[in-house]
Parts: sequence; structure tokens; C-alpha cells
Amino acid sequence: MPLKTPAQYKQSLKDGRTVYFRGARVDDVVAHPVLGIAVEHAAIDYALADDPRHRALAVVEENGREISRYYHLPRTSEDLLRRSELIATSTREGATLVVLIKEIGTDALFALHIVSEALAARGAAQYRDRVRAYYERCRDADLAVAVAQTDVKGDRSLGPSAQADPDAYVRIVERRADGIVVRGAKVHTSVVTNTHELIVLPTRAMRAEDGAYAVAFAVPVDTRGVTLIASPFGAFDKEPFEHPISARHKMMETLTVFDDVFVPWERVFLAGETEAAGPLALTFVKYHRFTAVSYKLPLLELLVGAGRAIAEMNGIEAAGHVREKLTRLASYHTAVGALIRQAALECTLAPPGLAVPSPLLTNVAKFQFASQYHQAVQMVQDLAGGLLVTAPAVEDLRSEVTGPLVAKYLGAKAGVQTEERLRLLNLISDLTASDFGGYQEVLAVHAEGSLEAEKLQTYREYDFRGPVAYARRLAGIG
Amino acid sequence: MPLKTPAQYKQSLKDGRTVYFRGARVDDVVAHPVLGIAVEHAAIDYALADDPRHRALAVVEENGREISRYYHLPRTSEDLLRRSELIATSTREGATLVVLIKEIGTDALFALHIVSEALAARGAAQYRDRVRAYYERCRDADLAVAVAQTDVKGDRSLGPSAQADPDAYVRIVERRADGIVVRGAKVHTSVVTNTHELIVLPTRAMRAEDGAYAVAFAVPVDTRGVTLIASPFGAFDKEPFEHPISARHKMMETLTVFDDVFVPWERVFLAGETEAAGPLALTFVKYHRFTAVSYKLPLLELLVGAGRAIAEMNGIEAAGHVREKLTRLASYHTAVGALIRQAALECTLAPPGLAVPSPLLTNVAKFQFASQYHQAVQMVQDLAGGLLVTAPAVEDLRSEVTGPLVAKYLGAKAGVQTEERLRLLNLISDLTASDFGGYQEVLAVHAEGSLEAEKLQTYREYDFRGPVAYARRLAGIG
Amino acid sequence: MPLKTPAQYKQSLKDGRTVYFRGARVDDVVAHPVLGIAVEHAAIDYALADDPRHRALAVVEENGREISRYYHLPRTSEDLLRRSELIATSTREGATLVVLIKEIGTDALFALHIVSEALAARGAAQYRDRVRAYYERCRDADLAVAVAQTDVKGDRSLGPSAQADPDAYVRIVERRADGIVVRGAKVHTSVVTNTHELIVLPTRAMRAEDGAYAVAFAVPVDTRGVTLIASPFGAFDKEPFEHPISARHKMMETLTVFDDVFVPWERVFLAGETEAAGPLALTFVKYHRFTAVSYKLPLLELLVGAGRAIAEMNGIEAAGHVREKLTRLASYHTAVGALIRQAALECTLAPPGLAVPSPLLTNVAKFQFASQYHQAVQMVQDLAGGLLVTAPAVEDLRSEVTGPLVAKYLGAKAGVQTEERLRLLNLISDLTASDFGGYQEVLAVHAEGSLEAEKLQTYREYDFRGPVAYARRLAGIG
Amino acid sequence: MPLKTPAQYKQSLKDGRTVYFRGARVDDVVAHPVLGIAVEHAAIDYALADDPRHRALAVVEENGREISRYYHLPRTSEDLLRRSELIATSTREGATLVVLIKEIGTDALFALHIVSEALAARGAAQYRDRVRAYYERCRDADLAVAVAQTDVKGDRSLGPSAQADPDAYVRIVERRADGIVVRGAKVHTSVVTNTHELIVLPTRAMRAEDGAYAVAFAVPVDTRGVTLIASPFGAFDKEPFEHPISARHKMMETLTVFDDVFVPWERVFLAGETEAAGPLALTFVKYHRFTAVSYKLPLLELLVGAGRAIAEMNGIEAAGHVREKLTRLASYHTAVGALIRQAALECTLAPPGLAVPSPLLTNVAKFQFASQYHQAVQMVQDLAGGLLVTAPAVEDLRSEVTGPLVAKYLGAKAGVQTEERLRLLNLISDLTASDFGGYQEVLAVHAEGSLEAEKLQTYREYDFRGPVAYARRLAGIG
Repeated sequence: MPLKTPAQYKQSLKDGRTVYFRGARVDDVVAHPVLGIAVEHAAIDYALADDPRHRALAVVEENGREISRYYHLPRTSEDLLRRSELIATSTREGATLVVLIKEIGTDALFALHIVSEALAARGAAQYRDRVRAYYERCRDADLAVAVAQTDVKGDRSLGPSAQADPDAYVRIVERRADGIVVRGAKVHTSVVTNTHELIVLPTRAMRAEDGAYAVAFAVPVDTRGVTLIASPFGAFDKEPFEHPISARHKMMETLTVFDDVFVPWERVFLAGETEAAGPLALTFVKYHRFTAVSYKLPLLELLVGAGRAIAEMNGIEAAGHVREKLTRLASYHTAVGALIRQAALECTLAPPGLAVPSPLLTNVAKFQFASQYHQAVQMVQDLAGGLLVTAPAVEDLRSEVTGPLVAKYLGAKAGVQTEERLRLLNLISDLTASDFGGYQEVLAVHAEGSLEAEKLQTYREYDFRGPVAYARRLAGIG
Repeated sequence: MPLKTPAQYKQSLKDGRTVYFRGARVDDVVAHPVLGIAVEHAAIDYALADDPRHRALAVVEENGREISRYYHLPRTSEDLLRRSELIATSTREGATLVVLIKEIGTDALFALHIVSEALAARGAAQYRDRVRAYYERCRDADLAVAVAQTDVKGDRSLGPSAQADPDAYVRIVERRADGIVVRGAKVHTSVVTNTHELIVLPTRAMRAEDGAYAVAFAVPVDTRGVTLIASPFGAFDKEPFEHPISARHKMMETLTVFDDVFVPWERVFLAGETEAAGPLALTFVKYHRFTAVSYKLPLLELLVGAGRAIAEMNGIEAAGHVREKLTRLASYHTAVGALIRQAALECTLAPPGLAVPSPLLTNVAKFQFASQYHQAVQMVQDLAGGLLVTAPAVEDLRSEVTGPLVAKYLGAKAGVQTEERLRLLNLISDLTASDFGGYQEVLAVHAEGSLEAEKLQTYREYDFRGPVAYARRLAGIG
Repeated sequence: MPLKTPAQYKQSLKDGRTVYFRGARVDDVVAHPVLGIAVEHAAIDYALADDPRHRALAVVEENGREISRYYHLPRTSEDLLRRSELIATSTREGATLVVLIKEIGTDALFALHIVSEALAARGAAQYRDRVRAYYERCRDADLAVAVAQTDVKGDRSLGPSAQADPDAYVRIVERRADGIVVRGAKVHTSVVTNTHELIVLPTRAMRAEDGAYAVAFAVPVDTRGVTLIASPFGAFDKEPFEHPISARHKMMETLTVFDDVFVPWERVFLAGETEAAGPLALTFVKYHRFTAVSYKLPLLELLVGAGRAIAEMNGIEAAGHVREKLTRLASYHTAVGALIRQAALECTLAPPGLAVPSPLLTNVAKFQFASQYHQAVQMVQDLAGGLLVTAPAVEDLRSEVTGPLVAKYLGAKAGVQTEERLRLLNLISDLTASDFGGYQEVLAVHAEGSLEAEKLQTYREYDFRGPVAYARRLAGIG
Repeated sequence: MPLKTPAQYKQSLKDGRTVYFRGARVDDVVAHPVLGIAVEHAAIDYALADDPRHRALAVVEENGREISRYYHLPRTSEDLLRRSELIATSTREGATLVVLIKEIGTDALFALHIVSEALAARGAAQYRDRVRAYYERCRDADLAVAVAQTDVKGDRSLGPSAQADPDAYVRIVERRADGIVVRGAKVHTSVVTNTHELIVLPTRAMRAEDGAYAVAFAVPVDTRGVTLIASPFGAFDKEPFEHPISARHKMMETLTVFDDVFVPWERVFLAGETEAAGPLALTFVKYHRFTAVSYKLPLLELLVGAGRAIAEMNGIEAAGHVREKLTRLASYHTAVGALIRQAALECTLAPPGLAVPSPLLTNVAKFQFASQYHQAVQMVQDLAGGLLVTAPAVEDLRSEVTGPLVAKYLGAKAGVQTEERLRLLNLISDLTASDFGGYQEVLAVHAEGSLEAEKLQTYREYDFRGPVAYARRLAGIG
């Protein structure tokens, strides 16, 4: 089966899936005024493979067939570096918004390969075989795949089986000869309104008593009982002049409900093995944070570039404090990029031979990104000036009455065209001071794991033994 | 003349003023779907004086007549503290958005009192007399007054008279027997679409060659030649459930153009005295930053309160990192509040007897507020979680189909009503992750002076002599 | 009894107290080459009262008698402000090192007044009477008083009565008709090698089972069984040219051992009332952190002054980054000072009528001081340059051979005398890059409560209810 | 010539060099009580090559001969990585204090290779030939080499030839047929009291008028006219129990005076080519900051290890804030290490084929190290507790009288030996709260370039063009 074109991708989404937006059932996600923007955005991943400039990066040949590089199982640092580059490239084309319809799904598939291999080593080979078959199916059909991981969790101080409502975590409510029936809901499911498949993973380690919650599986999005309630966040009719990014690029987020959904055994990847739930959640996260840092790089590049460009237009680029801010932004971008490359270079191999980027470096990179993001936004807003939130409308610029006034008065230094300056200011406003800016801020601290999760993982991955031994030796208490 | 009621205030704005919004002339600012929200918000200042709970704070008796406390010339620390409290109170009623229609105008009037007094001491008494008469008129008619200070500035590396376009700063283009004619434009003019009066101040110190730019005056907003081009930022039809603040509260910002506007001498407060331009700009800022910190306090209070409330609903308030964040937010709120009270307590008196809050402490307070704001937003977003940008719509909650699913799955810990949780999340989303959130971020770093301006003023106001002498004495080089 | 003179003070210390320094018993703390420096330093508190320039601040008249202001029970904000000023003044005279021989003792006495009053209200009046009598004795004899609070604690995860060694916290080992016998040890006891009295307080709240540990009392320092093991930290023969502060100023710290020490009842202030241990520890801390911030102000003043002075000598004061650093140092000094004054102004009254500085503001001030101290040191070191640690010796400057070379080459800009520059550099080196500098750093994060303790207290003192109510109201869930 | 042994190295330093310490001429640097410690420390570089455990790292075979790896010209990333590892290893052996006697000299030699090659390309081949010959001589004789770069600078706002004293920068005072005569002085010259050779480099770019100052050369340390005035900083008789690092490890810093020193042409590497002064200064710095970050890694490792070890001994390692601090320390160590490895991996080749580590990444790494160092010290001091500055002396521990008390009371949790805890505390005290701690702090912000220099270089090396183009493209103003 050849790679899908963008047009084929879009056509394939018209499948009767159950999606709600603002209380109303969505008939056609492609034609919908809001969800359709997300479909167009997602099509970037398919378009890249179609684009001669990007084909060498986006497509690899395996066993004589072309497949999307996303589906290429990483076996070397170089594989990870190229994957990272592809993720960054598609995000760049997506105007700093990750495309994600293949990125996240393959992160999950890599994790499933590793964890099912470990289960096979302990005697449960069925999961490995199913994972392989499912992976090949997705790869060969060039499918778009979402991942649902975060449970609604109920009371966060209690474990799954201790909740007042047993459905606060997705669980197996029935085991049948032909498969399982699952119930529950996941939040923050990105892009699922426009993928073909949905992989469901546990959100955390499970204890012995949580057997029903140690479950992983995949379903087609149009499966009966799967209901997607899409968030209206940031969804209003946007003027592209004023919202150059978010008027054209969007990612849908849903509350994903599993109302007694039947999953045949061939699509079940974990069903009760509580000891594997934690490793599966964690291995997914190891890949996904590496993916995440990769797709944050264009965002940081844009912060630097927009900050520098507007400083120049405003005529302040020589000021000491401006250089200070640009230097800090540039260092931020540089460090996060270098750390994630180093994470690929310091990867380890996990059976069945997959390269896993260094979790320590990945988490350090992710934390550097996440913890400094708001401060970086502050610096860019500082460089841009108050017009970010006080500039006139495009209609004012175009009007015969007000247009000349706007043109005369908002040009800044000689040689700068007012329209260009307003466009640049609107880009920064859309990027940092709009709902899209808020979305980026919230994603920075929550998506792919919170700040606390990154710190916890860093603490666990760092090997304190060498440093402690060194300290003891120097203290003379070796 | 008695104090205006909110109804009288609104009625009085229907005066034919020249306002454009998205390229179209606005006939009636009160009835306009966007500008009307700003009018309602502004009416809070009048409503407060009408409200028995707030009357003692909002109204003072002077010479047997009741006047708005805003117009009360501060002569003691207590006056400044009460003024600060009034500003904070009206902003609290305004859901963290400053009302500003009397706050900023009186800041300007206080500065004009002081600077015109100094000019009188140097022989130019006419300005003082005009300022007093104008002040009394505004006070007695209980007027709403905007201030336009920031020029469009053209090339920031050049002074006013060195610009390619001589109109890059507002200037006197003609001196007539009966007054002056001014041309130019000011940016970031807040609330002027719904005030009666507009005071224009120089934006910076002027050199000898910049005489035409050393100009201050006041005009009624409906004056011929004054054109207000309103910003469409954040102006779309908002669902109050999802935008509990910004669907109801708004401040308009305009590009304010002076197209050969005639100003009679009685309304001219500076016309060529270049040496007074800097002091006037600076004295206004001394009052206005004090005002600014006062009206930021409810914003900080809300960050603390919302952070704590959502942590409780999410059931995470006992976690160490949550307490750490709440402690930092509480410290931030506490320190900024204490510093601004201390600024009032350490005020100085300037002829003709006005109390000026300590500029050093005011700038230190303002910088503490502004430099940490984005980090505080990060902490609140961190406490709230990703639902800030992925939650369903109000229609999903109300729908018979999706409503039960939303209610079941988004309730968090026992005892929390899903709707209450969503309302609180929406409050935080509106406050921190929407265009309104972006507006607050940009205001933090730009309004009432940038971070750099605050640092510069701190450097100038701090008296290094004592510390240097102490260092030299301890070094033995006294 | 009149106030003691410095000479009387020194003479009175020759009392046979049991002090060890580097394993050897110290016969005479005044004559000892190390401990004697601390005695000279401590004498500043007595000298101030003797000095006409400071007498009005240092001495107050009460009931027709002159007493040291330290002993003046604070009843108003003004009392607290003056006390704060006195503490800052004596520390200034002490070259940024607190004198402490009356400061800390009176903090403890104020706390004892309040807590014993509360005990009296619950029926145990004996403690109040003893406290008053003891206070009057110290005040009338103008005594120097140390406080021992921090127990050695053993395993910090266990409470006092759960320790393997029951002596890990000071405890009552015997109750007799005439008094109690105590055993245990306290660490970090400052200045006790040169005070007359030692007050012992519990270090934390106690549970019901910890009755033997809920003990407070006072003993003369020469009491049998009290052994002081003095720390040798920073004690070597210092060249005053190179260590202009620490060659002349010193505070001793001891491990204070109570080896079955008998304390007569009249000196026992708590003996088993576990519920009062926490309040006593905390009330002491409320006063003592206020004292602490007061005596940190000269340190911050010196950082600013030294930073500015050396920047000028180095000829870099006009550079943007230098102004940035000086501004940050100045803001730091200003904010901490203003917050502690505000803490005095917002005091509350506790029975029997003592003014307690706002614990919220005190902790916020203390945390601002402590958390930024190392960064401030970094800035001053940055301004000063590498000569802090590479400059020649005073003997090189004085030598006929090397002196001219040093003078020629280390003069920096014209008009600066090399010797003056070296003296200033040595001051900064002593202040920030020596054992004394390390001492100041460690005190910043540990003395008078750790960073964590300050955060905890801030969290407890901040009233979240108002902010939460405000958030709920704006969210529409009032 | 074979590699030198430590004994041979020490013997070879007895050459009559002119060194002053505290105003007195030093006869024998090896036997001197202070300078001798530095000699012992420096011998580590020779000992490593002698040590079977380290020989593979420390020695390389080139053309059939063994040479010190320091002298191996780096041609690949791997060469740079191994060099970095060697530098880290010797510093580890040096207890976090860099050895430097070959590190810095080879940094200079690499830079001289590159800059003299560029000069040769422009027709001046003599320098290249001299550099090569000199390099081979040092390599073959396995010499220790210091570098003097920082001029005393006089008034920093003026260039070399504009100074009141023309000797404020080292300059050529006479050109002779057989060589040049130089005069001036350099500050902060590390290790030169115990190296064989001294290389002198310009400290900055020079203008056309500064020809006499564009000078680079090498001299044997015992050359007539070269006077070394050693700093007494931190030099006192230290108890090894209390100063486990600094009692045994030391680096000397000198003011290095050139009093009309004759340098034969074969040792002159730049003499008037002003355009090459800047590149030479900068190329040296490119290598030297890479070296610097390499030798800071053991310091960061020790901060982590000591912090963790003392937290465990204190029994607080499970507390949330302790884990937070340890995580931040671990991230700091990890990030700096990863960035410097990445700098090696992203090296570029400069004629004549030398690998230059990425200056952008090197500066980002160096700035991350330097800007966070004081904060890291704060965290370690926080974890360790106040005993850092209040603990008893070793004599108290050994004494029959006080020893049992110290042992009983300072043991912390069960299983911890008091002596071990005191040793660990003393290690941390020596590392962070002593003159050695101050030395490390000052080096962090000044050695190998200041914070400002690192930021400036980051700004220059970062390529803003791509980001700006990206921003313009997204803004639609491509």
C-alpha cells in the first residue's frame, strides 16, 4: 500500500465517528469550520512526504517499500536524530504547532514493542505478536494514530481501585472470549478527531489490586461507544491578519469517553499485567518527551526570530538590555536543542533492539524548555511593545479614512513599512498574547508530563552513586 | 453639581465623538457591542460612589460638597493609602481589570499641579491658574478623564525634532492668539472612548531644540480633529461561561490622532517650556505607577485565590510542590502590597503641598510585580492543569447526550461539582490563557512604564552615597 | 544599677566558665586570641550606650531609670521601629556582623512574657512571675544574654522521645523540690562564650509524649555542668589589611552541653507543658526573625556600597550591565528594608500588651533576604573582578622592591590610589570570598530559621480565605 | 625525550626564578610552605601519565613516541572528547581544583597554530614556523606551561595606546635585530610559579594605533626581568581535617611583571600585526572555555555528591524540598556536561586542521555553569546545615574531655559515625564556605572570561538569520 496523499487522508476521515462540538454532533470533521482547520493542519504530515524538498527526510525505504519515517523503528542515534529532525520540520511547517498525528502514535508503538518484548521474555508472547501485527498494519496503511493516556483520575490522592467512581480510570469491565469491554474516559486526547486510530495506554504504575486498570489497546476512532467531546478552546472565527498562526493552524483536544467499548483480543496489548503498566506508561513517556522537545524547537526558534526582528523594526536592537534579552533567548534555544541532540547520541538499546533516547538528558532538556518558557514569552513581549494588544485592525489599515493615519503613525523607524510591522506584531501577539499563546504556555507546563514529572524523572535517572562516592573519598570517609 | 450616576455617565458619552472600530465609524459607544462592554466596565467607578458599602471610601466631603475621592488632592500618607484602597476596590469590582476613568486622569492632574507650581515659581503663573481651573471643572462635574502620553516615536534612536516625520511626536504646529494647534498621534490611550476629557502629556524629557514638542493640554473627547482608532484586540463574541471575566469586562485602547486640533489657551498647560517636559512626564509617572501597583493587587489576589481554590478542587493541596507554589504566590502578593503601602507611608510633600509616594519604593514595588508576573502565571497554570485548554464547552455540559458524561468524568475529588470545577478552570483560563491573559501579561511589562524604565528610575532614586561612604569607611579609605 | 561600660562588661566575663577551644580549656575569654576578638566585638553594644552620638537611640528612661533600649518591652510600632534601628546601628558599627548579646536575649524574653502570660491565663501563673523577675534582673543589671534553641536532633525523622539516644533533645532528667536537672546539648549557640546569661528554649512543638522535652529555663553561663565547645571556624591569625572586617570582628558559636545541670525553679520557665513548647519556639522566632532582618540591612547596604565603589574605581560604572547589577542590589536592599519597616507598622498586640511584628511580613522579608543573598554576592564579585582572589599581599605593597610595581600596575583608572583600590578589594574579598563570606552565606540560609522554615511560616500566616472567596465569586461559584 | 616523572618535574623548578611572596623573595618554590603545596598539586598532571589506571587516557603515541595527550593536536571530535575527559580526570584527582599546567598552555598553543597559519596565508610565514618549533619543544620536553593574558588595563574605558601610563598593557618597547624588548604586567596569571614556560597573549582586539600592544611570545619562567608577585589569598596553615581540599591543593596566582624583558625572535609569535590580536585572543578563549567547562565538571559532581551524602547523613533525604534541591543540582551537572560534550561533537576544523569546539555551545555551557554556581552553593549549604560554620575542632573530637560529648551529640541519625559526619561537613565547609569556596565563586564569574564576555560571545556566535527569516515568513512578510 503506497503512502497516503493529503487528499486521501482527508477523505478517509469521513467515517461516521462520534464527535461533539459545543453540544452538537459533528457530521463531517473535514468540513467543520473549526475541526476542519485541525484536519488541514494535520495534513501537513502527509504533505511533507509528498514534497520533493522534504521527501528524503519524511520517507524511508524498508524492505523495498517506502514508508513514512515516523514508522521507522529507531535502532541508532542517527535514527533518533533524523526522527527528531522530521518532527521539528513538520512542526516548523505547522507554524510552531506540532502536527502529531504520526509522532505520538509511533512513540506509543515503540513503547509497546519494548514492553511487549519484556512480557514475552516472561512468557506472555501474545502481546508482542499483536503489537507487531498492529504496527505493521498502521505502517503499511500509513495511518494517523492518536494516543489517549491521561485518565480523569477522580481524587488524585487515591489509586484507581480506591476511587468512589470505579470508572475514574479506564478499566476492563468484562473479559470475553473474543476480547474485552472497557469503560472510562481520558482527557487531553490530542488530534483524535482527525486520526484513524486511537491507542490507549495506562497513565501510571498500577498496584496488584488495580488489575482491571492495567490495560492497553487500540481502536479505530469510529468504534462504537467511543465518544469524542471536543474542546472549544480558542475556537472562534479569526481574522488571519491578526492571527497569522492560529487562524490557520489548530489541534483539537477531546474528552474521550469509552462507554463499554468492545476491543477484540488482537487489539489488546495489556490486560491485567499490573507490573507492566508502569513500564509501559514510562517507556511511552521516554519517547514522547524526546518527541516533545523536538517539536518545541521551532517554537523557540520563532521566539528568538520574532524577538530579533521586532527589535530591529522598533530600532532598539543596539540597546544593552535588548542584546541581553536576545542573548538569553538564543541561549535558551541553543541549550534545549543541544541537549535533545545529546539525548539521541547517548541513547541505549532496549530489546528488541530499539534505540531509547537518554531519559536523563531528555528530561533535563524538557525541564529547561518548560521551566523557562514563560520567562521567554516575557522577554519577547518586552521587545515587541504594547502595540501587541493595542494595535488597530486590518480594516483600519485598509480603510480610506483611517488607513493613511495608521500608515503614517505606526511605521516606527524609516524604511519599515507599517503593514509589515503590524504583521510582525500580530504574529507575536498571536504567538504570546492570545488564546493560542495561552495554549502554548499551558502545554509547556503540562503536555507530555508536568514540571514535577520531569523533575521526578530526572531525580530517578541521575546516578547519584558516583558523585556520592567522590564526595566520600574527598571527605576521607571512602 | 452632584456626583454623576452610572446612568448619567453613560448618557453623557453620546456626544458625536470620532471613534473607529474595524474601519467603521462608531455612532454610539454605549450601544456598540464591543465598546459598550468597556462603558459598562467603566461605570463601576460611578457605581461605587452610589453604593452604600463603598460610599465612605469613594466619596469625600470638601468644603461642604461631596466629591469623588479620586479628585481629592493627596496631602498625607493617609490620603495616599485611601486613594490606593479605592483604586484596588474598584479594580476588584472590575474583576482585576482597572477601571481607570478617574484614576489616570487625577494622576495627571496631580502632576500638573506640581509642575505648574514650579513654573509659577519661575514666573510663569498662567499654567498653574489654568490647571487649577481645569481641575475644579473636572472635579465639580465629576468627569471621566483619559490621558494620552505615549507618542508613536518613529525611530526610537532619534529625538522628536530629528525624526524624518516631524509628527512622530505630538507637537504645536501653530500658535494663535486664542490658542494652539496640535498635530501628531499617541498610542496605547486607554479608556478614552468612554471618558469626557482627554489630557495630553509629553512622553519624555525634551531638549532645547524640541520646543514644539514640549506641550501639554486637555480637550473634550468630541473635539474636532481628534480621531480615536480603537484596537480590536480580544474583541469577539465571548461565552460568559468560558470567559467569566473578559465577556463582561473590557478596556478600550486606541491610536489617538490629533489632526490639527485647536486647543484654547485655557486648556494649554505647557507650550514650549522644554525644561518642564521631563519633570511633567516623570511626576505623572510617579503617581501613575503608584496607582498601577494599587490596581495590580486584586490581580495578584486572584492568582493566589484561584491557585489555592483549584488546588483544593484537584485534591493536590497537600503536596509539597503545591504548597511551595502557593507560598511563592502568597509572598508575591504580600510583598507587592506591603511595598506600595510603604511607598505611601514614606511619601514626600511637593509644592503646592501634594503628597508624592516614594518613587523609589513605588518603582521597586512595580518591578517586583512586573518582573515576576509571568512566573506567577506559570505557577497558577501548573496548579490548574491541562483542562485549562482542553475542557468541553458549556453546551456539552448542558446537553442531554454529553452532559452526563462530562458531569461523571470531570468532577475530580468527591464533593466537587463538575460545573463548579469547570467554572473555576474557565476563570483561570480566561485570566491566564486567553487574549485577556495575554493582555495582562503585556500590560505587566509595558503599561505605566516598562521593566527597563522601572529599573532606570530605581537606579536614579536610590541614594548610593550612604552605602558608598559605609563601604569606604569599612575599607579604611573613608 | 547603672548601665555597664564596655570595660565593666569585659571584666565581668572572667568568671570561670567552662569553655573549650581546639580541645583546650580557655582560662580567660577576654584575653584569648580568638575569643577575645568576639568579646571586643560584643562590647559594641555597651559602647553604643556610652556614645553621645548613639545614646538617644541606645538608652531609654523607664520609671526614672536609664535602661538599655534592648530591654524596653515594645508596645507600639514605633518601639519596634526604634529597636530595629538600634539593632541595625550596632550591626553597622560591627561592620555587618551582628553584636547579638542583647538582641537575641530580649527576643527570648519578649516571647517568654507572652507565652507565660498565656499559661497564666490557663492557671499556671508561676512562670509569668518568674519571667518577669528574671527579665527585671537582666534589665537592671544590664546583662548580656545568649539563647540556645537548636537541639542536636539526632535522627530528624523522629520526634524527641522516639530517638535512640533520649538526650538528642535537651530534657528534664530529674524533678526536685528545689528545681530541675537537665541534660542534652544545643548547637549553633551564638555569643554565649561572652554573655552573662543563657536562656534555653525548646526548638519545636512537642507532642504529649514529649513532656520531658518541653522545657525552658535560664542559667548563668558559669553554671556547673554547662560546657561550651567553641567552633574554630574562621579562626586564624588574620592580617587586617587583607581582612578588614574579620580580623577585628567575630562571633563565637558553640556546641553547648548540659551535663545534668541543676536549675532552680525560679529560673525554670517551662517544665512539661507540651502545648506551650510550640508557641514558645514560634513566638521567639517571630521576634528573632524581625531582629534578624534588622541586622541584615547593614550587610545589604555594604553589598550595594562596595559594588558601587569598586565599579567606580574600576571605571566601569557607566556600562549597562553594571547599572543593571547595581540596580538589582539597590532594589534588594530597598525591598528588604521596606518590608521589615512595614512589619513593624503592621504589628499586633499580644497579652500582656507586647507589640509583635507582623509574622507574615517578617517572613516575607526574611525570605527575600535569604533567597537572594548568594545571587547578590555573585553580582558584587562580578563588579569587583578577579583581583579579589589574586591580589598581592600588603607586604608586597610596602616592599621597596615590589611596592613600586604593585603601585604602578594595580591602580586602575587615573586618580585612583592603588592602596585604596586594594583596600576596597580586600574588603569585598573578606566580605564575600573568605571564611567570613562563607559564614555570611551559611547564616543567610540557616540562621534564625531556614529557607524552608520561612516558607512554611509564610504559608501559615497568609490568609488564603479572602483570595479564595474572591476567586470563587469571580468564577460564579461564590 | 621521555615523559617527565613528578619527581623530575619538581626538581626542574629549582631554577632561580624571581618569585615574591608577602614581600619576600622565594628561594625554592618546591620547598616553600605555601608555593610547595601548589607544586605538589601541579605534579598530578605528571603523576597521571605515570599511573597505570590513567595512562591510556593521559598518554598518546605519536610517530612512535609517547607524548602527553595534552600536547596532542585535536583533529576530531573524539580528540576533543578525550582531551576533555583527561582534563576532568586530572581535576578530579586534584579534588575539584584544576591542575592547569598543561591544559592552559596547550590551549594557547592550539590558538597560536591557527592564528599563525592564517598569518602565513597572508604572507607572514615566520610566526607559523616559530609556533611549530616551540610547540614541538614543549611537547618533546613534556613541559609545564602557563599563560598570561589579562593586562592590568588601567582605565577600562580607554584603549591601550590611550592610557595615561603606556605600560597598562604589555607592549614592545624596543625592536632589535635579535628580538624584542617588552614591558608591562599581567594579572591573574595562574600556576606560573611552578611551570617551565610562560606564554603571553594579547587580552583583546587591537586597533591600528595599538601596534606595540599586538604582541605574543613565550619565555622561560626564569627569564631575567620577569617578576612574579604571588597572591597570599587563602594561604595560611590549614588543618587538613577541617580543610580536606584546600590544605592539600592549591593554585598560585600572580601579578606577572615584565620589566624590559628581552625575547629572541624565535619566541615571538606576534609583533605588531594588530589585526591578528583579536583573533588570537578569541581563539585562545574558544579552547580555554572548553577546557574550563571540562574542569568544572568534577566541581559540579562534588556539589551533587556532597549534597546527597550529607542529606542522607542528616536523615532528610526523603523530604520534598531536599529532593527538589538534589534534582536541581543533578540537572545542573547533567546539562553542563552534556552541553560541553555536544560542543566537542559539533566542532569545526580550522587550518591547519585543528578541531575547534563549537564556540556557541561552549559559551552556552560556560554561562550555564557560571550563572548558576552561587545558587548551587546555596542549595548545598542549605542541605548541609549550620554546622558548616559552627562545628567543633578536630582537637575537640580527639580530646578525652570533649571527645565523648562531641561523639554523643553530633552523630545525627543512627548508624552515622560522628567523625564521618564532621568530615563530610568539613568537606562542604571547605568547598563552599571558606576562602577556597570564595575562590571557586570568584573563578566561576571571572576565570576564562566573565559572565558578560560569555553572553557577548553567545550573541555573536548564534546565527539569528534563520530564526528571523522564519519569523518573517510566518508573519507573511518573507
